[in-house]
Amino acid sequence: MKPSSPITDLPEWKSLKKHAGIINRKNNHLKCLIKKKDRLENFSLKGAGIFYDFSRQRVDAQAMMLLLSLAEARKIKKCFKNMTDGKRVNNTEKREALHTASRSFSDDPIPVNGKDVMPEIISVRNKIKKFASDIHSGKIKGSTGKAFRHIVVIGIGGSYLGPEFVASSLKHLALKKMKIHFLSNVDINNFGEIAAAIDPESTIWIVISKSYTTSETTANTNQAYQFMKQKGLDPAKHFATVTSKGSPGDDPSNPVIASFHMFDFIGGRYSVTSAVGGVPLALYLGYDVFERFLKGAEEMDIHAKAAQADVNLPLVAALISVWNNNFLNYPAQAIIPYASPLSKLAPHVQQLNMESNGKYVTNDGRPLGVTAGTIIFGEPGTNAQHSFFQLAHQGRPFPIDFIGVIKPCYGRYKSISKGVTNHQELWANLIAQPAALSSGKDDPDASKYFPGNRPSSTILLDDLAPENIGRLLSFYEAKTVYEAFIWGINPFDQYGVELGKKLASGIRSKMAEKNKNPDYSFEDADPITRFYLNKLSESYKI
Amino acid sequence: MKPSSPITDLPEWKSLKKHAGIINRKNNHLKCLIKKKDRLENFSLKGAGIFYDFSRQRVDAQAMMLLLSLAEARKIKKCFKNMTDGKRVNNTEKREALHTASRSFSDDPIPVNGKDVMPEIISVRNKIKKFASDIHSGKIKGSTGKAFRHIVVIGIGGSYLGPEFVASSLKHLALKKMKIHFLSNVDINNFGEIAAAIDPESTIWIVISKSYTTSETTANTNQAYQFMKQKGLDPAKHFATVTSKGSPGDDPSNPVIASFHMFDFIGGRYSVTSAVGGVPLALYLGYDVFERFLKGAEEMDIHAKAAQADVNLPLVAALISVWNNNFLNYPAQAIIPYASPLSKLAPHVQQLNMESNGKYVTNDGRPLGVTAGTIIFGEPGTNAQHSFFQLAHQGRPFPIDFIGVIKPCYGRYKSISKGVTNHQELWANLIAQPAALSSGKDDPDASKYFPGNRPSSTILLDDLAPENIGRLLSFYEAKTVYEAFIWGINPFDQYGVELGKKLASGIRSKMAEKNKNPDYSFEDADPITRFYLNKLSESYKI
Repeated sequence: MKPSSPITDLPEWKSLKKHAGIINRKNNHLKCLIKKKDRLENFSLKGAGIFYDFSRQRVDAQAMMLLLSLAEARKIKKCFKNMTDGKRVNNTEKREALHTASRSFSDDPIPVNGKDVMPEIISVRNKIKKFASDIHSGKIKGSTGKAFRHIVVIGIGGSYLGPEFVASSLKHLALKKMKIHFLSNVDINNFGEIAAAIDPESTIWIVISKSYTTSETTANTNQAYQFMKQKGLDPAKHFATVTSKGSPGDDPSNPVIASFHMFDFIGGRYSVTSAVGGVPLALYLGYDVFERFLKGAEEMDIHAKAAQADVNLPLVAALISVWNNNFLNYPAQAIIPYASPLSKLAPHVQQLNMESNGKYVTNDGRPLGVTAGTIIFGEPGTNAQHSFFQLAHQGRPFPIDFIGVIKPCYGRYKSISKGVTNHQELWANLIAQPAALSSGKDDPDASKYFPGNRPSSTILLDDLAPENIGRLLSFYEAKTVYEAFIWGINPFDQYGVELGKKLASGIRSKMAEKNKNPDYSFEDADPITRFYLNKLSESYKI
Repeated sequence: MKPSSPITDLPEWKSLKKHAGIINRKNNHLKCLIKKKDRLENFSLKGAGIFYDFSRQRVDAQAMMLLLSLAEARKIKKCFKNMTDGKRVNNTEKREALHTASRSFSDDPIPVNGKDVMPEIISVRNKIKKFASDIHSGKIKGSTGKAFRHIVVIGIGGSYLGPEFVASSLKHLALKKMKIHFLSNVDINNFGEIAAAIDPESTIWIVISKSYTTSETTANTNQAYQFMKQKGLDPAKHFATVTSKGSPGDDPSNPVIASFHMFDFIGGRYSVTSAVGGVPLALYLGYDVFERFLKGAEEMDIHAKAAQADVNLPLVAALISVWNNNFLNYPAQAIIPYASPLSKLAPHVQQLNMESNGKYVTNDGRPLGVTAGTIIFGEPGTNAQHSFFQLAHQGRPFPIDFIGVIKPCYGRYKSISKGVTNHQELWANLIAQPAALSSGKDDPDASKYFPGNRPSSTILLDDLAPENIGRLLSFYEAKTVYEAFIWGINPFDQYGVELGKKLASGIRSKMAEKNKNPDYSFEDADPITRFYLNKLSESYKI
């Protein structure tokens, strides 16, 4: 592949650099920008059921025009189409990236290596539907004949964060009889807490691992197997797997209730709409709710692909991200949902975005030359206001995505305080914060002066219906890949996690050696590693 | 007060600036620094039961010497002593900052306005002890005669994050019969979920608010009152308060089971060792566990005050923070405990540190001139490795506090995978990550190249005993205030949250007006605010 020229050499990039200087001038302080005529109308979008307001971002018409030219120059809509069409967009791992196919309900084929992948995807979906129905009806039971009531998901990273986000967002729709637990961390405390909370006889363990070799998941699965055996229960009747065809988790000599396939062309952090989310969520919420969630995601996928750039929500949001990141130099971004059930959105997007775009090398193998990726963090509002917003208002600035939900799940609690309901109080804060951050306030007392000019977007959902959770998920996925397409990096690999795994493997071997041979003294480790190995083995005996 | 000269004018500051240039040279890459003789011995400390390893921070002996000179120049040990002695160190609010007194078991008086505060602190502690004992023995019961089993804490910010951190860290010691819930967010979803999880007859609500006027807490308290009344229960027998003497929550005309006093001289984010944490934690864990937690905190307080600067854990940690923040220009810091029960440490320290030090004005009312405060975030390891560590290794670098716990709570689960137990697997990763981040790895394939030179500290606790949680809490508190003392800012006020509150109050009034008068059309609001007010009122009817 012929190396393309560095992104910083593009005329569009240079124009944006220059324009950032203009935006940094006093007369372009946000308190001035938001007073322009029709500011909200001109800097907000509605699409696929979501409202996106970027009127409090530090952009003007010229900035948006230049950003859209950059999008044009980087052919990002073409990249997105290539992705959804099944082209091999994950160039380092030589794979497609077809998470959008996992929620496609269209009749169009999606060929990979000349073979349509949709029949297999639909077959997995149907298998999940039947499985959930058989579990709920009691047709499939545990080894002592008790119906399943506890779902324990064993998985980490993308096999955990997406399902946890959706499960907690849609908890209000959960089947009353079903409880869900997530065993992600290899920390034995995580296992111990779950062991104490479940009824083993009515527990189904769902092991999610594409390769079925992830150390944490293997360790937790072994732990759970032993635990069930010790309780006199047959693991074969209490475990199901979500894994690649032919992996150790899909091996008939290792029997399980059912095994559901994952595909190479869907990466972990994009996989919640595949069987990874499908199996646990259909058991917890019912398959119909899961399908409504998929349909919401599909709607946003279609918008992200089809809508022209200037009215395309995730594309515009990605442009704003790159603008904030590389031109206004904000290193971090917060996600603050004014809805407690969305409390796991920030941890999910933290993985989705930071693992996808925390890269410094372009698709053609050269250093990018600018910093890609943003530090993502967040807590629900108003909690976040009472936690770290001091820094947001008067300290180190960072852009914020505020998320509002118009209708709450609990309509029946409507006590009035200070003249308003709780939900109105929540919204009073949701409306006030972006205003305070953008406008600031002068004060002769320096400790009460607010510099303002702190950017934010506001995203509105009508309610916490499954469709809206699907739309929101797909919005952040599409925003993430659009950012990557602008930078020209690969958002689908994660080589940055390999070195730590490799070093951990070497250290694990030394621990295993010590377990076998108490005289082994770690003498081949470097001094710092040896210190820690000794520290543990002196006080922790197996 | 005579304004002191700007921090950047100090010769120590200038020397540090210069030395940062030297540290940024290739030959001072961390992979070189960690190979120096006795690196770990020279760059680690043990004190008050905690081990603190900063050998993988980007410092050399000269950097530490210069940082310690800065500490000397800023008289930070004197500032700390002033704080613990009851001097009025919160100069803007004209208050003392005596959180350390709340866990003092010494006989020394601490005079405030000439009056020893210790007798009142001890009296509150004794009252908590008796209260917990009466609740646990069933002497104090709910209005229908059922013993209390559900504790719901109503509080936000400092009245929530500290207690939640300690409760989740010590969950393994919780009294089996007691369950704890936190009602912090004004979001009605938060209330709805708790209402669905409790048995109202056996529920005690603990309202925590210093002023008893915090909007969110008031709204949630009203909601809970109505809820209990609708269930036919007498709120007077189901509510307790933790509040200032004479506040509306300490008003005999508004009867409660008991009211515990908070003091002006302890700020919210430093208050978990006062009645704020004491009442809910003593009910959940038993008073003895709470007292052990206090004693651990006291031990670290004594160390933080007495240990000389170069062997003082929180002081050295604060110096490293300032070094990373202002000289090596890292805007963020992650806290990654390799222990699931510490999952709420990062949210707690996020508030503690960002609300304390997210300031730009010095104690003498002038702009600080450098950026104080760091963006704090974190998730437990190994989860974090499978989430955002791609960015940590190959993207935007940020310093990390790794936290290890030598002995796990669950000794009885010891299945072996790949030759090691889960706990050993966890430690293999805890040991590997700082090594990988610091050393990096060369690779001709750019996507597999690891730049390294990414700083971290490692903190070790022996186990999750209450004393260790107290030590860890006090360590982060002392580190936070030491940072502030270096910058010369006030870590005890939070004027930055006032503007948002004020704007929210104006918006709330408009909503209240609309609730009374459906014809009111928000015409006096600015266009963006009006848009959102209409958006809500069109779809959400009270």
